[in-house]
Amino acid sequence: MTNELPAIGSTTWVVADGYIPPHSTGPAPEMTSHDSVCILNAGPQPAEVDIFVFFTDRDPSGPFTLRIEGRRAHHQRLNDLGQPHAVSPGRDYSLVLRSNVPIVVQHTRLDSRQESNALMSTIAYPVQ
Amino acid sequence: MTNELPAIGSTTWVVADGYIPPHSTGPAPEMTSHDSVCILNAGPQPAEVDIFVFFTDRDPSGPFTLRIEGRRAHHQRLNDLGQPHAVSPGRDYSLVLRSNVPIVVQHTRLDSRQESNALMSTIAYPVQ
Amino acid sequence: MTNELPAIGSTTWVVADGYIPPHSTGPAPEMTSHDSVCILNAGPQPAEVDIFVFFTDRDPSGPFTLRIEGRRAHHQRLNDLGQPHAVSPGRDYSLVLRSNVPIVVQHTRLDSRQESNALMSTIAYPVQ
Amino acid sequence: MTNELPAIGSTTWVVADGYIPPHSTGPAPEMTSHDSVCILNAGPQPAEVDIFVFFTDRDPSGPFTLRIEGRRAHHQRLNDLGQPHAVSPGRDYSLVLRSNVPIVVQHTRLDSRQESNALMSTIAYPVQ
Repeated sequence: MTNELPAIGSTTWVVADGYIPPHSTGPAPEMTSHDSVCILNAGPQPAEVDIFVFFTDRDPSGPFTLRIEGRRAHHQRLNDLGQPHAVSPGRDYSLVLRSNVPIVVQHTRLDSRQESNALMSTIAYPVQ
Repeated sequence: MTNELPAIGSTTWVVADGYIPPHSTGPAPEMTSHDSVCILNAGPQPAEVDIFVFFTDRDPSGPFTLRIEGRRAHHQRLNDLGQPHAVSPGRDYSLVLRSNVPIVVQHTRLDSRQESNALMSTIAYPVQ
Repeated sequence: MTNELPAIGSTTWVVADGYIPPHSTGPAPEMTSHDSVCILNAGPQPAEVDIFVFFTDRDPSGPFTLRIEGRRAHHQRLNDLGQPHAVSPGRDYSLVLRSNVPIVVQHTRLDSRQESNALMSTIAYPVQ
Repeated sequence: MTNELPAIGSTTWVVADGYIPPHSTGPAPEMTSHDSVCILNAGPQPAEVDIFVFFTDRDPSGPFTLRIEGRRAHHQRLNDLGQPHAVSPGRDYSLVLRSNVPIVVQHTRLDSRQESNALMSTIAYPVQ
């Protein structure tokens, strides 16, 4: 029955509060402080997702491109985007994601700078 | 007066960031790490809610079906969905929920891997 | 210049994940575990806000009515709603809020059951 | 390719749950308790953003004006808005942001009153 599900969501999404906490407590990689974009490509076609990174004091970089197969979830740590870093820990940024097919994007941060980790999450902003 | 409230919400919702933290600190079940979908069926008719689970590396599973009576709230831990597990702890996933009547869905995680628990929550993405 | 701002938002809002953690760590009332609806009435007219509380196993209760003057914020702990409790700590619930004028509603929980408090927040679901 | 991105978002946004926790644990300014509005101005034109602050018991104040250059992110701690404070720590407030060009706004709080910090975040409410 899951084969009947159509593509769902928007083709452009924004994450305004990007930040990778620069310290961590606990075993890596599980408890490493990170910022993630969690993406669902519910439809049958592969998604090509371009990620643009905006900064406070210089021109944006990107796009960094992800390929997500049809009917797949993909959770991407921003820590792991680009070579070696699209975004440096400890610096403010924002993201724009653009896909060739509709996707859904949720933004989540794990912050383990202090002894017990904190979490935050929000649906990203879908452009209509 | 609550009998006058109509059905509210959307019939399709998405949670992109699914994850059940694989460890816990504190007494079960209250402080057990979990991922939940919290659902309101405000209208008078029962809701049949199909939950589809998407993974990063294999085909989606489901639907897993919940029945929620009219004018009732239902908070469902994903930990408890399916036999024995619809989703294994420690693995990324996404969810699509489809209902025969309008509902509202909020996604919440409790993570007690470290000594003091973390929480995160967001309204799910409503398909219009 | 703030006198020029119009009423903003929706007249019906939903919070699906209601829960008051039943224990607390730290000084009351500041660090007492609580669930809150934070409301902005940006326009010039007073808002009469009816709050309906939905449960998992019995009929909804309410409405509980708040009056919020024009151009005022109001943060309401659910702990303090009703006589003596509209909602008991440790039990799942959902909320529907209805106002005679447009308002904006955000849902926030502070959970201090364990030693360092957790927070979660989301924009509520606006009915259009 | 980032030069091709248009302005994205809404020109009016609301944060209903404003609060600066009045105590902190850990090194300043990184771990100082704060409330932030994280703003993306994705388009080419500078944004002039007026921030209005609403309180529970007195008339709103503002606007406090930010200028954000085109294609830039800006994360603003409310702690640092105004002279000396637009909003005092430990008091409830709400925000309305109005911009001359479309922007996207996310609201985030870091609360380090207790030993390990808590985080919460949500997309702000976009007026359409």
